Amino acid sequence: MDVREYVAANAAEFSQALRQWLAIPSVSADPAHHGDVRRSAEWLVAYLKESGFPVAEVWETAGLPAVYAHWQAAYDRAPRVLIYGHHDVQPADLADGWDYPPFEPAERDGRLYGRGASDDKGQVLFHALGLRACLAAAGAQAPPVSITMLIEGEEESGSPNFAALLRERAEQLSPDVIVISDTTMWAADIPSICTGMRGLAEAEITVTGPTRDLHSGSFGGGVPNPVHALAALLAGLHDSDGRVTLPGFYDDVVPLSDPERDLLAKLPFDEESWLTDAGDSRATYGEAGFTTLERIWARPTAEVNGVWGGHTGPGPKTIIPAEAHAKVSFRLVADQEPDAVIASLRKYFSEFTPNGLVASVISGHGVRPCRSAIDSPAVGAARRAMERAFGREVLFTKEGGSGPEADLADILSAPLVFVAVGLDADRIHAPNEYVDLSRLLRGAETVAYLWEELAAGPVAS
Amino acid sequence: MDVREYVAANAAEFSQALRQWLAIPSVSADPAHHGDVRRSAEWLVAYLKESGFPVAEVWETAGLPAVYAHWQAAYDRAPRVLIYGHHDVQPADLADGWDYPPFEPAERDGRLYGRGASDDKGQVLFHALGLRACLAAAGAQAPPVSITMLIEGEEESGSPNFAALLRERAEQLSPDVIVISDTTMWAADIPSICTGMRGLAEAEITVTGPTRDLHSGSFGGGVPNPVHALAALLAGLHDSDGRVTLPGFYDDVVPLSDPERDLLAKLPFDEESWLTDAGDSRATYGEAGFTTLERIWARPTAEVNGVWGGHTGPGPKTIIPAEAHAKVSFRLVADQEPDAVIASLRKYFSEFTPNGLVASVISGHGVRPCRSAIDSPAVGAARRAMERAFGREVLFTKEGGSGPEADLADILSAPLVFVAVGLDADRIHAPNEYVDLSRLLRGAETVAYLWEELAAGPVAS
Repeated sequence: MDVREYVAANAAEFSQALRQWLAIPSVSADPAHHGDVRRSAEWLVAYLKESGFPVAEVWETAGLPAVYAHWQAAYDRAPRVLIYGHHDVQPADLADGWDYPPFEPAERDGRLYGRGASDDKGQVLFHALGLRACLAAAGAQAPPVSITMLIEGEEESGSPNFAALLRERAEQLSPDVIVISDTTMWAADIPSICTGMRGLAEAEITVTGPTRDLHSGSFGGGVPNPVHALAALLAGLHDSDGRVTLPGFYDDVVPLSDPERDLLAKLPFDEESWLTDAGDSRATYGEAGFTTLERIWARPTAEVNGVWGGHTGPGPKTIIPAEAHAKVSFRLVADQEPDAVIASLRKYFSEFTPNGLVASVISGHGVRPCRSAIDSPAVGAARRAMERAFGREVLFTKEGGSGPEADLADILSAPLVFVAVGLDADRIHAPNEYVDLSRLLRGAETVAYLWEELAAGPVAS
Repeated sequence: MDVREYVAANAAEFSQALRQWLAIPSVSADPAHHGDVRRSAEWLVAYLKESGFPVAEVWETAGLPAVYAHWQAAYDRAPRVLIYGHHDVQPADLADGWDYPPFEPAERDGRLYGRGASDDKGQVLFHALGLRACLAAAGAQAPPVSITMLIEGEEESGSPNFAALLRERAEQLSPDVIVISDTTMWAADIPSICTGMRGLAEAEITVTGPTRDLHSGSFGGGVPNPVHALAALLAGLHDSDGRVTLPGFYDDVVPLSDPERDLLAKLPFDEESWLTDAGDSRATYGEAGFTTLERIWARPTAEVNGVWGGHTGPGPKTIIPAEAHAKVSFRLVADQEPDAVIASLRKYFSEFTPNGLVASVISGHGVRPCRSAIDSPAVGAARRAMERAFGREVLFTKEGGSGPEADLADILSAPLVFVAVGLDADRIHAPNEYVDLSRLLRGAETVAYLWEELAAGPVAS
């Protein structure tokens, strides 16, 4: 029985098991459901043991529990693979607009409905099926690579304890490659691999002028206005080509290679429907010389997320405001460092704030960008595996998200490869989340091939 | 008995009468005091009749009553003078920080304390004393010019019904010159005449992008951000010389003449103490080529009074905001028109808002600027009269306020001349308002001479 036959033969059992798991409302954001998050972890431990994992256990954190499972390869020198996913889910309530109870999962017309079907329980579970298919097809007792699963319980709550867990367990985990199964493909019929996620640097800016709002009739025209200065400085963050002007901003950006650009250009991007998704935006806009997909995936940005100052209530008030404020954030790409970007922002405001005003820049949350090189052996292996499963050319995408991926790569010092079969259409984080059972089965098939591919060659570039 | 002797001889009676009037809490902003505003009008009518005015009466409006009084000159062809002031006062409460009850006026050490002492009852009342002095010194039964007093009861509430009253009574009033007694001098020992007040044009701007806030991780860098556009457009309102860039903005500005600039430069301006008054501002800033006094008095400005858009609450939110807003106001100088300025602003936003965003400009309140030409016969007469009363050179100032002065000039088609003895130090609109009795007496003396001066020559240029 080959991999595909094994997967098909076990599809019904897989669907049933997933529905059992989806019935546990493991909402990490809601303290009322924290017991369910633990039940979800325990369910997964039991299921992985049943699936043959020699080791499967709950790993405690300062918050909600993760699941760890390990299946050693027959050969000690075989590559060590760490699979990352999460077993907690977004909140869901029938009243939010669901057409059926979100934690009473059902299979209808080849689709599995329920909170977590796509994000991320379905994509965690296909690994158990894929590994069994890999073993069955080979008639082996142990996988060709050492498999470790590390399934987090707080991803939908910002992974507050995950980095600490990784640091604590780094030696035990020490993977050669990290497989992330928590992203999406371009379309059901256009399999693709995510090759990077943008990072983030945040800051709040305050420009201070007089100690109180001044009457503009008495003082207007004679002293600097903090809102004018802030507006000019925010406007100056971009040049007329839409490029960020901060000195050194692009120095560490890994440029898109021509093959990467060619592959991105192969994606059938429909600008009109993308603009509709973008809140009915009327036109695209961005850095000159790049396509929309390159702009949102592979190029860093500066965005003002909020601005306020002076009189913002009803009616007029003819004042020179005492202060003006802005919240800004930068989407970063590898190898930009959040701290370096904020330092450059601070220098910019300190140098160009007009005489008589004072600017302060307080740095906020930072997430380092992550990147998965398309010419790396692991990505090559994943692409071959996925092409075998889907029978089509596999393209490359990137994503805007900023989860714990960079932490995984940094703390465990291993390359990332994104293997996932979710779709933007799966309504993750929204009512009526679903996933096609057939896609999850292709995912299982993909990873069954992936372990073979990885065993056949070097995994790190 | 000459004018000065008459004024001195009647000083005690004047002080007593003023204190009687100040005891009436004629707060137009407080409905609980509207009866007091009427009592105040009735008190003034009675006092002006006692002072010899053949006609003195309450003039009703759609709001609170004004007072009208008229004393015809002996000669029909004599110039017709309209005196403007107001008998309503700012709110005042002991709890605001007054050292004495604001409506229990007292004279101490030559100062009169009480709400309205300087703004504006003291300055209205010196006209009655001045006119009596003028008659007494000449031994005449009728003044050398026809005197009309029009004393408003809603100035501190924005004069909502005053323009309508002027239109209704324009034919009856038809002055040759309008004397405004509701401004300030540079200092107690530096008498000066106000020669203009800036006007105002207000607008609220909205820049609209997507129909909802967008996740900056998914869309950032690909669509235009309304806050960026608003910041750039607000920043673009000024050039690097601090000049307003709107096309045509300066076309109607009456330039400062060299004599005017020379006279403004004679005022002993102390930048350091001015900056302290300006909310401890750290530096002056404004239109290149002009002094601070010229900038705040004689040059038009554009100020952003408030700005808001996107996330302004605690913490970060990585969005592209759907909208951005600003409130702007322009201080105008003669002969700028509020409507023309807002039309130019609207054109600027419509032309330069980036593709994909839409800007709307909603115009607000407009006040036309007013100007009193220093080379006009009326201002010349006022300057001579004031120099006779104070025994010193009289300089010129301007003010930032925007009361009903432009309406008076426009609706009654007559030149303005500002004759007043208030000081910035009088704490008008603040606790512990006061006025020096000696200044009010100089005011009485000034207008006694003014009627002679005006009778002696042409009053309109």
